[in-house]
Amino acid sequence: MSLNFVFIGAGNLATQLSTAFQNKGFKIIQVYSRTKESAKNLAGSLSTNFTTSVQDINKSGDIYFVATKDAVVDEVLSQIDFNNKLLVHCSGSLPLSVLEKYSENIGVFYPLQTFSKTRNVDFNEIPIFIESNSEKNEELLIRIAKQISDNVSVVNSEKRKLLHISAVFACNFVNHFYTIAADILKSKDIPFEVLKPLILETAKKVQEMEPEKAQTGPAVRFDENIIKAHLNELNEFVNYQQLYNSISKSIFEYYKK
Amino acid sequence: MSLNFVFIGAGNLATQLSTAFQNKGFKIIQVYSRTKESAKNLAGSLSTNFTTSVQDINKSGDIYFVATKDAVVDEVLSQIDFNNKLLVHCSGSLPLSVLEKYSENIGVFYPLQTFSKTRNVDFNEIPIFIESNSEKNEELLIRIAKQISDNVSVVNSEKRKLLHISAVFACNFVNHFYTIAADILKSKDIPFEVLKPLILETAKKVQEMEPEKAQTGPAVRFDENIIKAHLNELNEFVNYQQLYNSISKSIFEYYKK
Repeated sequence: MSLNFVFIGAGNLATQLSTAFQNKGFKIIQVYSRTKESAKNLAGSLSTNFTTSVQDINKSGDIYFVATKDAVVDEVLSQIDFNNKLLVHCSGSLPLSVLEKYSENIGVFYPLQTFSKTRNVDFNEIPIFIESNSEKNEELLIRIAKQISDNVSVVNSEKRKLLHISAVFACNFVNHFYTIAADILKSKDIPFEVLKPLILETAKKVQEMEPEKAQTGPAVRFDENIIKAHLNELNEFVNYQQLYNSISKSIFEYYKK
Repeated sequence: MSLNFVFIGAGNLATQLSTAFQNKGFKIIQVYSRTKESAKNLAGSLSTNFTTSVQDINKSGDIYFVATKDAVVDEVLSQIDFNNKLLVHCSGSLPLSVLEKYSENIGVFYPLQTFSKTRNVDFNEIPIFIESNSEKNEELLIRIAKQISDNVSVVNSEKRKLLHISAVFACNFVNHFYTIAADILKSKDIPFEVLKPLILETAKKVQEMEPEKAQTGPAVRFDENIIKAHLNELNEFVNYQQLYNSISKSIFEYYKK
């Protein structure tokens, strides 16, 4: 497939996705970002052009991938004439319909993963969720997705939103808990290092067991002495103390069913 | 080292630790548990003896490892005469001093990991934290720990309690969030499977980056539209809705610093 892509957005997702596409032979002809540094860096690493001006967005793209913060999608797209070219966003939470105003050919290309600019990920196993307004566009997006991943499926906007919420729990909130753990350890000068094998094993465990069955720790054992002692110990971290309390209660409630 | 161990407790930790010891040539001469099935199963897999009666606990052990629920430690130990043999507990939260009543030779042997009976773990990288009431006992426990792990250190009871609290966040609460994510997906018949690459990558990321810098998602981007939409979507999961809200706030607060 010889297709020319334009990337609108140059953040974590745009960086990783455009790189994965280029590695499979797709051509990224331009990167747009409002932030010059981001646009320049990504274009540089892809050896392509960049612009920070919506007026200069290249008209000859076959597909326009929108990978900006959800909050600015409308603001950016409303300034561009896509001439009914295929316009695709990569957001978990935005419905397909947000693109209807801007082109007659629209789609969603949502890779379910956490991306950072500096950490390369193997797209092969990343689930990619496709949605489109026509069978022809859907088929094209599926074919493209299958070039970079073995795990491609079609879902509607409603299911995708739920996927995104579940990902917030399983990734964003999880990572915040890693941060909290690191913060607690720091108060006694203990390096975060000590938690790494535990963190990895916790994630590996649920690759094979249902998480419901993998649960360990004082809350699922209803060990109230430990919970009280821990809450007491967290007196100097009031915010973490409240979280400890409400999550322990949530575990209690889940398992008393 | 030719040493005879007695295990008091036959749960997740006892199962994995006694097996690791036996694999390195230590002899487990007996397993005690109040639950016959647990005692029998573990003794069976170790090809050793078991008892469910404190009166029948073997007097010829060199070290007695206590790996029961914290809440029952006192109840069980108060019925046994250890004849001042080395008595060691494996708890993150109990101080060393809880053992003072029961022997003149006491210690702590705390492997920082999540254990399940059916999932074997490689002890090699698991941090093991040692504490004891004498240099001689401490040295012996360190030597034993080094037979099964490359990551052995000495910490006092106060630091160990904090290690345990951080592990509750980084493992137990994290796993509960995997469960919540699975539960949310189930409501739309989406298999948990789709989250596995994300979960693994989230854990792998912090093996190399500080968790603080690995944070992604709507909360750290201050994307209030998405957060509102997610909270709205969670109307049918009131408990998860509250957690979503308080953790998003915690992320806000952490990064606005």
